[in-house]
Amino acid sequence: MSELVLLQLAIVLAAAKIGGEICDRWLKQPAVLGELVCGVLVGTSVLNWVPGADPTLGAMAEIGAVLLLFEVGLESDLGDLCRVGGAALWVALAGVALPFAGGYVAASALGCPTMQAVFVGAALTATSVGITARVFSDLRTLHTREAKIVLGAAVADDVIGLVILAALSGLAATKAVSAYGVLRVTFVAVAFLVGAIVVGFRATPFILHWANRMRTRAALSSAAIILCLAVSALASVAHLAPIVGAFAAGLVLAKAEHRVRFESKIRNVADVFVPVFFVMMGARMDLSALNPATAAGRHVLLVGIVLLVVAVVGKVLGGLTVPGRGLRRLTVGLGMIPRGEVGLIFAGMGLKAAVIPPSLYAAILFIVVGTTFLTPPLLKLCASAVRPIAIEEPQAA
Amino acid sequence: MSELVLLQLAIVLAAAKIGGEICDRWLKQPAVLGELVCGVLVGTSVLNWVPGADPTLGAMAEIGAVLLLFEVGLESDLGDLCRVGGAALWVALAGVALPFAGGYVAASALGCPTMQAVFVGAALTATSVGITARVFSDLRTLHTREAKIVLGAAVADDVIGLVILAALSGLAATKAVSAYGVLRVTFVAVAFLVGAIVVGFRATPFILHWANRMRTRAALSSAAIILCLAVSALASVAHLAPIVGAFAAGLVLAKAEHRVRFESKIRNVADVFVPVFFVMMGARMDLSALNPATAAGRHVLLVGIVLLVVAVVGKVLGGLTVPGRGLRRLTVGLGMIPRGEVGLIFAGMGLKAAVIPPSLYAAILFIVVGTTFLTPPLLKLCASAVRPIAIEEPQAA
Repeated sequence: MSELVLLQLAIVLAAAKIGGEICDRWLKQPAVLGELVCGVLVGTSVLNWVPGADPTLGAMAEIGAVLLLFEVGLESDLGDLCRVGGAALWVALAGVALPFAGGYVAASALGCPTMQAVFVGAALTATSVGITARVFSDLRTLHTREAKIVLGAAVADDVIGLVILAALSGLAATKAVSAYGVLRVTFVAVAFLVGAIVVGFRATPFILHWANRMRTRAALSSAAIILCLAVSALASVAHLAPIVGAFAAGLVLAKAEHRVRFESKIRNVADVFVPVFFVMMGARMDLSALNPATAAGRHVLLVGIVLLVVAVVGKVLGGLTVPGRGLRRLTVGLGMIPRGEVGLIFAGMGLKAAVIPPSLYAAILFIVVGTTFLTPPLLKLCASAVRPIAIEEPQAA
Repeated sequence: MSELVLLQLAIVLAAAKIGGEICDRWLKQPAVLGELVCGVLVGTSVLNWVPGADPTLGAMAEIGAVLLLFEVGLESDLGDLCRVGGAALWVALAGVALPFAGGYVAASALGCPTMQAVFVGAALTATSVGITARVFSDLRTLHTREAKIVLGAAVADDVIGLVILAALSGLAATKAVSAYGVLRVTFVAVAFLVGAIVVGFRATPFILHWANRMRTRAALSSAAIILCLAVSALASVAHLAPIVGAFAAGLVLAKAEHRVRFESKIRNVADVFVPVFFVMMGARMDLSALNPATAAGRHVLLVGIVLLVVAVVGKVLGGLTVPGRGLRRLTVGLGMIPRGEVGLIFAGMGLKAAVIPPSLYAAILFIVVGTTFLTPPLLKLCASAVRPIAIEEPQAA
């Protein structure tokens, strides 16, 4: 049993490196795209060497996502994030409202009843920032204002996602939205984020000072990882995504005195876990529902393509309308495209409550797959197109 | 579900660092002892924050054991190991024969029938080298001849353990030993070890040369980890312990051209996984069967203590009789003391075949617990007592 995990982990890491290399060297694409594609190859849909539902690799993938956003947080600056706070909030709000409205209208036009259309709209709202963060990291553009806006928007997006989740679970269960429930969930999430950052800035200097004086091997980097894991776990208690907690922990530790002494060590650990996240993201995709050889598959693909266009255009418009001078607005909009588990959670809720049919659920899976694979090449294209001009490059911190 | 893993991993790492620090700084003991004790505290027996049976943490512990022996292999030299090969084989053979004979006699004296006594004797034979490797690493004595003899003996011991396992499974199933089965298992194991090392030395330069030219992040260290995981997984196909495969992979990569460029990165990864192995080793221990407040518990403890003495004296005698000039024979003998899962597998086989009663199984668990906790302080004591003389220190490679 556990020996199987050793082999599967070897396969996952090999798939990540081979796929990443092919994409980076020959296809001139971000490495993460190759990790996703090779994940599909070794995963549930094709070879099934690495079952997407494996709980151990799933947990390691979760740790990978957490360490990725922790690293991104470590390389970010809370002050910079606050300075782009207004723009980030705009991107988050517009990027929720437009896909929701678009999804609702498109689903209605495709003949869905009102309730179904609401669930479809909701499923198109939540951005999954892991892919984008990784692409920015692959392209070495994490320090740009655009990246900061996307990261800030992702945090706001997660809070908005919570609000929608609370509203939807009310809708699915009782056909009514509880204003109290929505407010409570929002308050807890915002209070957690503010509290984690405020308490974090006070407490971490003591913890790291203490860890720094320890004799045990790797005490300082272990302390940083323990803090990251603990805040991520706490975030999920506040119903936030663990990666939002990890990002907050990274922001706090970015200001730590001993940062240079643990940052590279954490990067080495992340180098093992992060590819597991992306390969497993590919491995989990069960593409059998999207088979164009069957009539059902073609119907799903047709509905999926319509909704995918809505999903992409909605987020891009959200990015294009953001106020601010000298911004590459298209990069911001493209950065918000990826949809992930949260969309599937919304759709799954509708499926369970028998509000939406399985074919619509499969179409939403198609959106998750489509946005995941579209984002890396689109961001790369956008970066390549703009790079020669690079007027605002000196503005980057 | 997966958020729980984040919290549990944070607890495991925190327990490891706190326990390790207390042992190292105040109790002047190897850090691993503190990891084990804190593992018992947070594990199944006491707080149950980290259930010993958790499959994800169990898999991460397995990866930790593999990375530990990989690191130890990386710091070892195959030539040095071959030079102490005769002594290592002696220690392994004497360290199997003496505890087997002692266990058989002691169990017979305690009133066990012949078949039971054979299983008890067999359960006392297999050394679990993880603890010792870690203590040598904690004490910075991995480079000594004594450490090399123990590591070589541990590899031989694992092959001998296989032979015993094959014989015992015959005994448990058909009350007869299949000479063909025993020979086949031995041949496969030895052929795998020799093959892995021979093929490894030929193939790794190409693989690492190729990985070194890759653009993807951390390709070289990932290649080393992939090789380690793959050889470990293959070892278990040859019915060897995965850690023996990891040790062999480490020996091969120790000679690699680019070793300096991946060794420290692998150490940073191991720093996260290895403590999981030792904390989970403690967390898995279910001490309720050893409760001295109950009559059954007292009986188990009594039998356990007798067998523990036999188990310790048998391995120490095996070490003390090893030929060779200027050797700290006691260190070799003490290094072979730890018993691990293999003893429990033997006992479990007897339990399943209804050859041995549950109380005897619990007594063998006591031996595993006892030897695990005795080894670090005994090795430390021995090192402290001998260090002022240190005649053969310059002989170390």
